Amino acid sequence: MSANTFGTLFRLTTFGESHGVALGGIIDGCPAGLPIDLDFIQHELDRRRPGQSEVTSPRNESDNIELLSGVFEGLSTGSPIAFSVRNKDHHSHDYDHLRNAYRPSHADYTYDAKYGFRDYRGGGRSSARETLSRVAGGAVAKLLLAQSGINVKAYVSSIGNVHVENELTLDQIDETENSQVRCPDKEASAKMIQLISDLKREGDTTGGIITCLISGVPPGLGEPVFDKLQADLAKAAMSINTAKGFEYGEGFNAPSMRGSVHNDIFIASNDGDIKTKTNHSGGIQGGISNGNDIVFRVAFKPIATILQAQASVNSQGENIVLEAKGRHDVCVVPRAVPIVEAMAALVIADHLLRNRSARL
Amino acid sequence: MSANTFGTLFRLTTFGESHGVALGGIIDGCPAGLPIDLDFIQHELDRRRPGQSEVTSPRNESDNIELLSGVFEGLSTGSPIAFSVRNKDHHSHDYDHLRNAYRPSHADYTYDAKYGFRDYRGGGRSSARETLSRVAGGAVAKLLLAQSGINVKAYVSSIGNVHVENELTLDQIDETENSQVRCPDKEASAKMIQLISDLKREGDTTGGIITCLISGVPPGLGEPVFDKLQADLAKAAMSINTAKGFEYGEGFNAPSMRGSVHNDIFIASNDGDIKTKTNHSGGIQGGISNGNDIVFRVAFKPIATILQAQASVNSQGENIVLEAKGRHDVCVVPRAVPIVEAMAALVIADHLLRNRSARL
Amino acid sequence: MSANTFGTLFRLTTFGESHGVALGGIIDGCPAGLPIDLDFIQHELDRRRPGQSEVTSPRNESDNIELLSGVFEGLSTGSPIAFSVRNKDHHSHDYDHLRNAYRPSHADYTYDAKYGFRDYRGGGRSSARETLSRVAGGAVAKLLLAQSGINVKAYVSSIGNVHVENELTLDQIDETENSQVRCPDKEASAKMIQLISDLKREGDTTGGIITCLISGVPPGLGEPVFDKLQADLAKAAMSINTAKGFEYGEGFNAPSMRGSVHNDIFIASNDGDIKTKTNHSGGIQGGISNGNDIVFRVAFKPIATILQAQASVNSQGENIVLEAKGRHDVCVVPRAVPIVEAMAALVIADHLLRNRSARL
Amino acid sequence: MSANTFGTLFRLTTFGESHGVALGGIIDGCPAGLPIDLDFIQHELDRRRPGQSEVTSPRNESDNIELLSGVFEGLSTGSPIAFSVRNKDHHSHDYDHLRNAYRPSHADYTYDAKYGFRDYRGGGRSSARETLSRVAGGAVAKLLLAQSGINVKAYVSSIGNVHVENELTLDQIDETENSQVRCPDKEASAKMIQLISDLKREGDTTGGIITCLISGVPPGLGEPVFDKLQADLAKAAMSINTAKGFEYGEGFNAPSMRGSVHNDIFIASNDGDIKTKTNHSGGIQGGISNGNDIVFRVAFKPIATILQAQASVNSQGENIVLEAKGRHDVCVVPRAVPIVEAMAALVIADHLLRNRSARL
Repeated sequence: MSANTFGTLFRLTTFGESHGVALGGIIDGCPAGLPIDLDFIQHELDRRRPGQSEVTSPRNESDNIELLSGVFEGLSTGSPIAFSVRNKDHHSHDYDHLRNAYRPSHADYTYDAKYGFRDYRGGGRSSARETLSRVAGGAVAKLLLAQSGINVKAYVSSIGNVHVENELTLDQIDETENSQVRCPDKEASAKMIQLISDLKREGDTTGGIITCLISGVPPGLGEPVFDKLQADLAKAAMSINTAKGFEYGEGFNAPSMRGSVHNDIFIASNDGDIKTKTNHSGGIQGGISNGNDIVFRVAFKPIATILQAQASVNSQGENIVLEAKGRHDVCVVPRAVPIVEAMAALVIADHLLRNRSARL
Repeated sequence: MSANTFGTLFRLTTFGESHGVALGGIIDGCPAGLPIDLDFIQHELDRRRPGQSEVTSPRNESDNIELLSGVFEGLSTGSPIAFSVRNKDHHSHDYDHLRNAYRPSHADYTYDAKYGFRDYRGGGRSSARETLSRVAGGAVAKLLLAQSGINVKAYVSSIGNVHVENELTLDQIDETENSQVRCPDKEASAKMIQLISDLKREGDTTGGIITCLISGVPPGLGEPVFDKLQADLAKAAMSINTAKGFEYGEGFNAPSMRGSVHNDIFIASNDGDIKTKTNHSGGIQGGISNGNDIVFRVAFKPIATILQAQASVNSQGENIVLEAKGRHDVCVVPRAVPIVEAMAALVIADHLLRNRSARL
Repeated sequence: MSANTFGTLFRLTTFGESHGVALGGIIDGCPAGLPIDLDFIQHELDRRRPGQSEVTSPRNESDNIELLSGVFEGLSTGSPIAFSVRNKDHHSHDYDHLRNAYRPSHADYTYDAKYGFRDYRGGGRSSARETLSRVAGGAVAKLLLAQSGINVKAYVSSIGNVHVENELTLDQIDETENSQVRCPDKEASAKMIQLISDLKREGDTTGGIITCLISGVPPGLGEPVFDKLQADLAKAAMSINTAKGFEYGEGFNAPSMRGSVHNDIFIASNDGDIKTKTNHSGGIQGGISNGNDIVFRVAFKPIATILQAQASVNSQGENIVLEAKGRHDVCVVPRAVPIVEAMAALVIADHLLRNRSARL
Repeated sequence: MSANTFGTLFRLTTFGESHGVALGGIIDGCPAGLPIDLDFIQHELDRRRPGQSEVTSPRNESDNIELLSGVFEGLSTGSPIAFSVRNKDHHSHDYDHLRNAYRPSHADYTYDAKYGFRDYRGGGRSSARETLSRVAGGAVAKLLLAQSGINVKAYVSSIGNVHVENELTLDQIDETENSQVRCPDKEASAKMIQLISDLKREGDTTGGIITCLISGVPPGLGEPVFDKLQADLAKAAMSINTAKGFEYGEGFNAPSMRGSVHNDIFIASNDGDIKTKTNHSGGIQGGISNGNDIVFRVAFKPIATILQAQASVNSQGENIVLEAKGRHDVCVVPRAVPIVEAMAALVIADHLLRNRSARL
C-alpha cells in the first residue's frame, strides 16, 4: 500500500540511507506477549553484515541495533516496535565524484528521473544497506513463527555457473552457516569460493541463486485471489536489490512437464491424515499452503560495481569514464541469504495473522 | 492490501465464482474524463474466452459484459466503475461427484483446509474463470495507458519443450493474434499446435511461458523500496492461476553472467538524451522504470485436470479414483496471454498515478 | 484507504449512482461459515427506502437486492460477497435543467471542481441513494455481530428543535420502528411529526440528531493510536451524506464537566468482575471498548432541496433561479437510522476481526 | 489501514511510549524537493511541550527532535523521513504503584483487556506524550501545505463553561500564541485562566473546545464516498487523546436550522468567479472542499487525573483508593492546539496528493 511499508497485519515500515544518520524501522501489528530476543535479532543482522569472511567486502559496519519502543519487560506489548541502527563509517566525500555521474545498471539515473535529484552518497536509499531493516523486521517475524513451529531457512544453490546438483533437504542445509558462501554442499561451496577468487583478480562480478525452504507451515495460509501466498512471496523476493527472478515448486521447469507427471497425488495415512506423494507444487495449491514444505528460489544478477573502467554519462548527458575504487564484493548472494529469509518470514507471519479471520 | 483488491490508487476489486450468479468487479481510482470504449473491453474478454480455436476447450460462455456505474456520456466520472458478467451455462450437477473429492494439484484440499468447506462447482472461486474480471479491469487500465502512449503486449514464447528461439521485437509480436496458440513465430507456433494435438490424444496436458513487453513507459515509475516496479509486476503475475515463476530482463540467466557483460552501458545522443546500449535490465533499474521496454516472462505449469484416471483421496481421508469427463484444455497458456497483459496494465496504470506524487 | 472502500479486514467497496444502471457493493473479508439471511438484508434495505410513511418522500424504488457471489448453500464461503440493486425509476430527463446549474449546498459545484464534469442526474454518486449499498453491507456485518451477541440500534433523538428529553435505554428504543419518525419517545415523536407537517406547508426542511447504542461489545476492540474505536466510528458517521457532527459519551457536554464528575469510577463485583458506576465515557476508554454500551450521536443538517425559489449560479458563472419540483422530503433523518446502524456495524465487525491478532 | 499509520499517500507511522527509549515516526510519501525547515518542526514541538506557562504542568521534557533519514542538502528526497525524540526524564519507579491499579477513565483497564498486560509507566503508549510524533509529522505536512498557500490555525474557543462568544476570523486568531491558554479573545482568555486557577486549588480538572480554521484550500479536495474530507478530519480529530466530539460548519447547530437558512447561496462575481454568501457548510460540500475556509471544532473531556482521592479497583478485582501525586495539568486543551493543527495538516496534505489523480 505504501512504498516503504510491507505487510497487511504484521507490517514493517523502514527508513534510512547508506550514509544518512541511521537506518531502522517500525513493526506494527506484532501480537502482544511475544518474547523479543534482542540477541537473536542482532545475530541475524550480523549474518547480513559485510566483512564476515574473506569472500565478502571488508567494510566493518558493526550495525548495533537499538530497540526504541514496543517491548516491556522482554515482551512485545502490541504497540509499534521501533528499532534503529546508527551509521558510523561516514566517508561521504568519497562519493563526490558520483554527484552527477550515472553508474551503469545502478539506480542513479532512475532516482534522478523520478525525484529530480538524489542522495548520491553510497547509493542513498537504493543501497543494499537498506536491507538491514528488513533483516531486523524479519527476525521479529521469525520469533513469532517459531511459536507456531515454523522455520525459514535459505542457502546459496548457485553462484555463476556453479550449481548445487540436487535439491537439499532441511537436514542438509543445517551446514549453510559453515560455508563461507552459505552453500551447504561442500563440493559446490569449494567451487564457488574458487570462482569468486578468480573473478576478484579480474575485477569482475557474478550473480547467483538462493533457495529457501519454509517448514512447519500449517495448511490454510494465503488469501486468494490477489494475495495468494506465492504472489506475496514473489513480491517480497523481487523487492530485494538485484533480484531478477522468482520461482516456486517446479518453477521454470514446470512448463515443459506433463500434467500426469507434475500433479501431486494425494495419499491418506491410516489415521486419515492427508499428504501428497510428491511436492512439485512447492507447498502451495490455489494460492494456499497445503502443509508441505514451501520451496522457492530467487535469482540475483551480478552486482553492477566492477573494478574495470566503464564508459558512462552524467546528468548533463556528457560522456564520462567511471572507475570504481576501493574494495568491492564480487558476489553478494551469500549475504542475501538472511535477507531472503527475512522477507519470507515477514510474508508468512503476516498470513498467519490474516488467516485468523478466515472462519467464523 | 485486501485479498480481492489489487492496486493502490488504480484499484480493482473482483468477485465471482465459476458457477455462481455472476462475476465482475469494481475499478476505483480511475481518473475522470477517460473515454470508456465498451467494445474494446468486450474484445479483450473475447480474447480470454474458451472456444476461440480448435486448440482450446469448446465451452462457449459468451461472457457479455455490462457496465453498472461510473461512466456518463461515454466518459469515466471519477466514481467507481462496476461491471459484471452473468454466468449462463450452469450444469452444477455435473460437479456433484467432486463435493468431497480432492483433485490432485487443484485447490480443493486447501480451500477446505482454510475455509472449512467450499463451493465445489467448477472450482468455485479458484476457477480460472475468475480471471475474467482481471481482463475487464485490465482493459480499462489499457485505455488509461494508451492516453500516455504506453502499450502492453504479450505472447506465448514456450509450450512444453517448444520454444521461440530468439526474443521477439515489438513489430514481430503483432502477429500474435494470427496464431492459434498466440505465438507470433510461425515455425514455433506450428510445432506447439502439433504438440497440443499429440497430448490431446494421450489425455495429458502441458504448460508454457508467456513473454510480456511494455513499451512507452516513461522513466520514473516504481516506488522503492517495497513497491519496486518489478516487485508489483511479480505479484501481479504470480497471482494468476497456475503461474509458477516470474523473471524480468535476463531473469534466471543473470546469475551466471558477469557484471561486465550484464551492465547496461549508458550512451548520450547529441541532444543529451540518455539511453542504454543494451537492455539486460529489462527496463527497470533500482525498482524504477528507465524508459526502455519492460520485458518479463511468466512460467505456467501444466493444468491439473488430465483425461487419465488418477488415484486420490476425499475429505474423509478415503482413497478414491478420479477420472475427468468431457472436454478439457490441453494447454491454457494461449488464453492466459490477455490475462498477463491485464495484470501488467493494472500495475503500470497504478504506478503512473502513484508517480504523480513523486515531486513537489 | 480507498475512496469507495471502508474497513481493514471486513471491507465494503461500493458503487453506483442515483440514475445509473445499478448500485451495489462487494464485501471482502467476511469469515467463512456465516449464515447469510437474505430476507434480513432485504428488510434492512426496506427500512432505508423512501415512501415508508406519510412523512417521507413517496418515490417507490422497491430496491430488490440480488446476491451475485460469495454465498454457497446459505453460508458465506470466505470469497467476496457481491450484491446489486437495479435502478428502475429512470426519469433522467427530469434533470436536464440541472446539467449546468449549481444547487445551493449540494455537491454539484464541488464535483465539477474536482472531476471537471458530473453525472447530474439525481445527484449521481453524491445522491443519498448511494447509502443503499452501506445498508446492505451493514446488514451482513450485523449478521456477523449477532454471532457474538453484539447489537446495534439507533433512533431519532432530535428533529429541528424537538428533542427527546432523556437518554433512552436499550429496552425503550425497541419502540423505534413503531414511530413514523423512528423516535421511540411517543411525546417527542408526535411533536416531530407535527413539525414536519408544518414545514412541508412552508416548503422548508429541517435536520436532526440520531443516537446509536451498541450493546454486547466485549472489552478490547479498537486499535490505538490512530484507529481508536471512536475515531473509526466518527469517520463512519461523518462519511454519511449531510452529517455535520459526531460525539460519543458525554460529547460536547464533556468540556464543561469537571474531572471529578466525568470520571467513571470502577467497581468490582464479588466475583471480581470489573464494571463502572457510570458510563460518561460512552463505552470506550483510550480508544478501546471497555464492555459498557457504546453510545454516540450524529448531527444531520437540514436537506438542501427546498420547495422555495432560490438564487444560484450555473457553471458559466451566470445568475439563475432554482425552483425544486415534485415531492421532496422535509427531513431524511428517520431514514438515516438504518444507515447509521449500518456504518456502526461495519466498524465493529472490522474491529472484531482485527482484535483477533491482538495477542499471541 | 494500520493502527499506527495515518494517511493514504502522505503517511505518518508513529512509535513510542511515555517512558520508553524514544518516540518518533516515519513520514512516507512526502514529495521530493520540499525544503525541510528543522527549526520550524522543533518550534511546533515546543508549542506542544508541557511547562510552557504557569497554567500547564511544569515537567520540562525539552523534546529535541533528530532527523534520521529522507532529507539531503535540506530537501526531502522522496524517501521516508524518519525522526525521533529521546525520552530523558525517566522516573519509572514513580509508577510502581500503578502496575496493577486501574485509574478511572484512563486506558489502564482497556489495554489490559486487549493485550493481556501493559507498559504502565506514565500510561505507556496511551500517554498523551504519543502526540509528540503527530506534531512532528504535522509540521512537515504544514511545510508542504505552505507551498500551496494553505494555512492551518487552531485556537481554544471554550474551557469549562467559558466560551468565546463569536466565531473569530483568521486575522483575530493571530493573537492565539499571546494567550497562556491559546484563546485569542482577551476577555475569554482572562476568564479561562481564572477558571484554571480556581480548579487547581480544588484539585479538579476541566475540558474545552478547540476551533480550527484552514484557509487557502483549493476546491476539489476530498474523496467520496467514504474518504470525504470531513470524514477524514473527524477521524483525525477523534484519534487524539480525550477528544469526545467533532463538528464542522454549523455542526450540532445544524439540526435545528431550516434548509432555507442553512443553505449557502452561490454568487458569481463579475469575472465569473463562484463564491457563496455564507459558509454554514464549513468549506466542504458533498465531501469535497469548495474553496471557503474549512472550520471544525473538537470537544475535549476533562483530564482524568485529579488531585483528589478516588475509589477504584485493581487487576485482581480488589477495591483500592487512588491518590495522584505531584503536579498535574488542570486543562490540557491549550497544549492540544498544535496537535489539532497537526492532524488537520496531515489530512489536507494527504488529500492534496490524492487529488492529483482526480482527472486525466
